[in-house]
Amino acid sequence: MLVSYAAQAKSAACQIAIFKIIADAGGIYACDWVGFRVELRPQMTDKPLQLGLAGLGTVGTGVYETLCRNHELLEARAQMKYAVKKVAVRDVRRTRDVQIAPEMITSDWRDLVNDPDIDIIIELIGGTSDAYELVTSALKAGKPVVTGNKALLAEHGSELFKLSAEQGVPLYFEASCGGGIPIIQSLQNSLICNNVESVAGIINGTSNYILSSMERKGVSFESALTRAQAKGFAEADPTLDINGWDAAHKALILAMLAYGTPISPEKISVYGIERVTAADFRFAHQMGYTIKLLVVIKHHADTDALELRVQPSFVPREHLLANVNGVFNAIAVKGDIVGETIFYGRGAGKNPTASAVIGDIVMAMRDLHHPEFHTGFHPYTKTLEIMPQEDTITPYYVRFLVPSRRSGVIAAIARVLAKYDISISSTYSTPHEEDDTENVENDLVFTLHACKWGHLKTALKEIAAEGCIAPHPAVFRIETFNS
Amino acid sequence: MLVSYAAQAKSAACQIAIFKIIADAGGIYACDWVGFRVELRPQMTDKPLQLGLAGLGTVGTGVYETLCRNHELLEARAQMKYAVKKVAVRDVRRTRDVQIAPEMITSDWRDLVNDPDIDIIIELIGGTSDAYELVTSALKAGKPVVTGNKALLAEHGSELFKLSAEQGVPLYFEASCGGGIPIIQSLQNSLICNNVESVAGIINGTSNYILSSMERKGVSFESALTRAQAKGFAEADPTLDINGWDAAHKALILAMLAYGTPISPEKISVYGIERVTAADFRFAHQMGYTIKLLVVIKHHADTDALELRVQPSFVPREHLLANVNGVFNAIAVKGDIVGETIFYGRGAGKNPTASAVIGDIVMAMRDLHHPEFHTGFHPYTKTLEIMPQEDTITPYYVRFLVPSRRSGVIAAIARVLAKYDISISSTYSTPHEEDDTENVENDLVFTLHACKWGHLKTALKEIAAEGCIAPHPAVFRIETFNS
Repeated sequence: MLVSYAAQAKSAACQIAIFKIIADAGGIYACDWVGFRVELRPQMTDKPLQLGLAGLGTVGTGVYETLCRNHELLEARAQMKYAVKKVAVRDVRRTRDVQIAPEMITSDWRDLVNDPDIDIIIELIGGTSDAYELVTSALKAGKPVVTGNKALLAEHGSELFKLSAEQGVPLYFEASCGGGIPIIQSLQNSLICNNVESVAGIINGTSNYILSSMERKGVSFESALTRAQAKGFAEADPTLDINGWDAAHKALILAMLAYGTPISPEKISVYGIERVTAADFRFAHQMGYTIKLLVVIKHHADTDALELRVQPSFVPREHLLANVNGVFNAIAVKGDIVGETIFYGRGAGKNPTASAVIGDIVMAMRDLHHPEFHTGFHPYTKTLEIMPQEDTITPYYVRFLVPSRRSGVIAAIARVLAKYDISISSTYSTPHEEDDTENVENDLVFTLHACKWGHLKTALKEIAAEGCIAPHPAVFRIETFNS
Repeated sequence: MLVSYAAQAKSAACQIAIFKIIADAGGIYACDWVGFRVELRPQMTDKPLQLGLAGLGTVGTGVYETLCRNHELLEARAQMKYAVKKVAVRDVRRTRDVQIAPEMITSDWRDLVNDPDIDIIIELIGGTSDAYELVTSALKAGKPVVTGNKALLAEHGSELFKLSAEQGVPLYFEASCGGGIPIIQSLQNSLICNNVESVAGIINGTSNYILSSMERKGVSFESALTRAQAKGFAEADPTLDINGWDAAHKALILAMLAYGTPISPEKISVYGIERVTAADFRFAHQMGYTIKLLVVIKHHADTDALELRVQPSFVPREHLLANVNGVFNAIAVKGDIVGETIFYGRGAGKNPTASAVIGDIVMAMRDLHHPEFHTGFHPYTKTLEIMPQEDTITPYYVRFLVPSRRSGVIAAIARVLAKYDISISSTYSTPHEEDDTENVENDLVFTLHACKWGHLKTALKEIAAEGCIAPHPAVFRIETFNS
């Protein structure tokens, strides 16, 4: 396709000047003079696009290796040439798995931003201080950024997207969420016509690995965690994976993207998997469920409010998400046009994450020639309220620990639940298997029909005040995926 | 981002001329004069991009309705304006579900191609004759095309992609495969750095609906088909869905895309679901499997050949694909970098397919300003051989029907299998439940370790020649998804 401009100036000198100006444009355009018109034709340039890679940790190494190993394939598919020009690392003297020419390496990420030849910046240094400076200064310098930094986006996302929009310089972040799963590009592009009704998913591989092995082996949380650490599927400090905050960071990113709305982390309700027990898995199994650490984002059209929460939940065995095991992730997106879709894959790891980063790099390379029409995220102005947790409604599983042979307990609990209009769907009572024989307690399980969390919370406080049961019952939401 | 050109001509007159030329460029660029430099800044144009929609059947109606209903959302997300300018239909007088101004409607698709205002053509007329003419003439006229026409691409894909590349005009086809599932854009963009090792999937909703209800209700193929037709999930003439060719068309498209290679339909091995029986489902269930109509595309690195086949197969119950039920589709893609990914969603239907078409329309709108760097498919030159079916290797399930009380049958079969070096993994023998009591036969089932189809085919012929069993045993591949 040609872009054709009428040349207003009729002097030959001026025509030549225009010709030269256009030809100077970095080889992006070829042009043809036809009488008084000049036709601009974008053409594939032989000059490779220059990439600046900041960070050579696990994912950075995966990106560099893949850019080298699958170079020919990538250039053939993308129809563009590229080269990594500079790599910024923290410690230039460290021995590494990849061979990189010493003159390409710098210890200062500013060298990438300041290099006029570098077209695209890839931020894989992690953290929220240097990474924040790098991303903002790159955007200000007009260089598109590819990042996989979920903590950065969860903390500074609204600000960075605003800066990106102001500068007209795109920011790509496929790798920040779901590892190799193309959830970000799918939400941005393929599913673009959909009002997103809900997003529900398993987006923390470590906690899913732990829950999967608790289920399969019937072991405790602690022993499953130790096993995951021994196998390298949980870090020495697994806090953010286990307490739900890693998943929460990703949930924020998905919510910002799906609803175009800025959200701050304190609005989100987060529970981790630390309190899930083997007993809960036994009951879940008996009732046709499994337990998964779920992110749930749901738009309520009636109030135009967003339900947003992270917690271990009961998932029906026949639902696909119940069958996502080990370190795998899966994200279910329900749109008003497309209906239900699910995206499944490896949610972390060197190569899967590198695959996502490189998908973004190619998008950035293509978009480079038409930044105004880029495929990155355009935050559109819509501010949604986050629904108070107390108003969210789901069915529940509640497991109380009660001394056996104590009479009247079920009656007391049922009376309080009835007072708050919470109806019981089923009850189970069995000896608590972890007890010694001296001090026998019973697990007393109630499943409850859908009710407001605010009501249940108050009821549970009142039940605790009765004094007939151990404090802190196990409470899990039961996800139905219907509404 | 700014593109900055040094102005070579120093005369004020020439500067003004350049300024005007640039400003004339259809509103795509704004520009700033800074001394002897001119800075071009692409800017959002107020002129809506004009769409020409050919075909107002089920999907066309869904596309038109969604373009209207979610107009505001789409423009906000895409940061571009659009309008449907003309709609071509076969019969202009037909009453329709959607209200379209009469002056927008034409009975001749040529009016879309010939209208200089129309920027993008959406081909949803189906078939391979008019659609072929429409797509080729649109590409030749420099208008990008969005199509959902799988038959057209399976038959003329290589030629159309070649034309698209020659003309530098992209052809988008997300809706041709997997309905609303963003498999095409994911393969093209997000997963672009991956050597695709395999693609395996359920990509025909009708046959999956039939197999799912055979499994759940234990009914015969015929009664499941009748039920599907009554519920509107199978057409009056369901031939292409049932005999596997609809899935084969989609498989060809996926293979062309994943491997950049032209493939002609006659190279593919296709079996339908007509011969799947309730007895096979019973055995599958007993052995921990279900039966799915699978598309399998696998690259063999050692010979650089492509295994490509469509057939009902045994799928392990715990695999996610085994849990894809009803009209849903799912496609598993294994890449050398990303590992295993699965994409799940509605594989057909008005709105899900419209969602895919509109995802492509937005891509086409963005790419319109930089066609040379478009995100559509770039067929790269690589010609892969299709592996002869006889050389493909999987484990097998074979069910023979043998007269009961006939002695020596197992021995005879085992002897022939051993002769061809095919080893038996397990055997089952039970009375055939569909028999009347007069004429009792036994189902004699063998599962076989992985072997070449060529060997098994020869062995089965030799077993048939022994005359002790009914001809035409039921033969299904067992998919392991490992290699």
